Amino acid sequence: MIQITPQPLTAAAFAPFGDILDCSGDADKIINQGMCGRFHDRAQIEVGEGAAGISLFNATPRSFPYTLNMMERHPLGSQAFIPMHEHAFLVIVAQDSGDAPATPQAFITAPGQAVNYFANTWHGVLTPLQAPGLFAVVDRIVPADLDCDNLQEYWYDNPYIVGP
Amino acid sequence: MIQITPQPLTAAAFAPFGDILDCSGDADKIINQGMCGRFHDRAQIEVGEGAAGISLFNATPRSFPYTLNMMERHPLGSQAFIPMHEHAFLVIVAQDSGDAPATPQAFITAPGQAVNYFANTWHGVLTPLQAPGLFAVVDRIVPADLDCDNLQEYWYDNPYIVGP
Repeated sequence: MIQITPQPLTAAAFAPFGDILDCSGDADKIINQGMCGRFHDRAQIEVGEGAAGISLFNATPRSFPYTLNMMERHPLGSQAFIPMHEHAFLVIVAQDSGDAPATPQAFITAPGQAVNYFANTWHGVLTPLQAPGLFAVVDRIVPADLDCDNLQEYWYDNPYIVGP
Repeated sequence: MIQITPQPLTAAAFAPFGDILDCSGDADKIINQGMCGRFHDRAQIEVGEGAAGISLFNATPRSFPYTLNMMERHPLGSQAFIPMHEHAFLVIVAQDSGDAPATPQAFITAPGQAVNYFANTWHGVLTPLQAPGLFAVVDRIVPADLDCDNLQEYWYDNPYIVGP
């Protein structure tokens, strides 16, 4: 089994895979009589002819060493994960290599960071590292008959081990 | 000045104004090999012919007694506020009465609750009650020339006082 060491999540490293949503840099606009900064339109939402929706995901926390035995991707739309807490979580992504994930890369978020995966980007399942594993998810709401078209899984014969 | 006492946020009380996004009840779907519940498509996103986007709002916390001197509404789209923390926040809404807000109603969220205001619903500005005042906001991304069409403010000659 191959070990993968998570790295801090940075915009440069994550650029091929999606957007980081955080309050780095100056606000785009100051609103509410000076009391609020708006960091505007930070995710490239892709939903094709469909519509985006907001769902909540409540996931069981994982721990290190984490066994990565599967990655998935959603061809029909992007998918944003917004933590409803201040805890770091684990993000695993991979480039595509002939309709399979290339070597995965693992990242640890900083508090206040959300991520948006581009459509068709290989990623691990939601992996909070402590409770509550609660996230708001903004993704394409696909009709039930397209559900199968929007999920591809790749299972490893030899899982990766992710841990510091 | 008239005092308003915030009430716990419940779906029944909030129904005229918008959606509560939380994990009450059973998950709509269990995903990720049994490790995650999906509470599916919980917000009625309204963006007309436009598109929804994700922005981050970083707001200064307020304290009680809170002076409510203005309410606003967005005719062109809904607006969801997703706390990126586990703290309660203050939600103030009002029915419409002849293009002005009727008597405001104030609510305190529970941890794990987000809200989505329907389009054209009178609401107070974002009022976290402790730091960090960080929220992801899902609303209509309007072109700059429509910005003014999407914000109506109503200023009170006699502000309300909100507090327990």
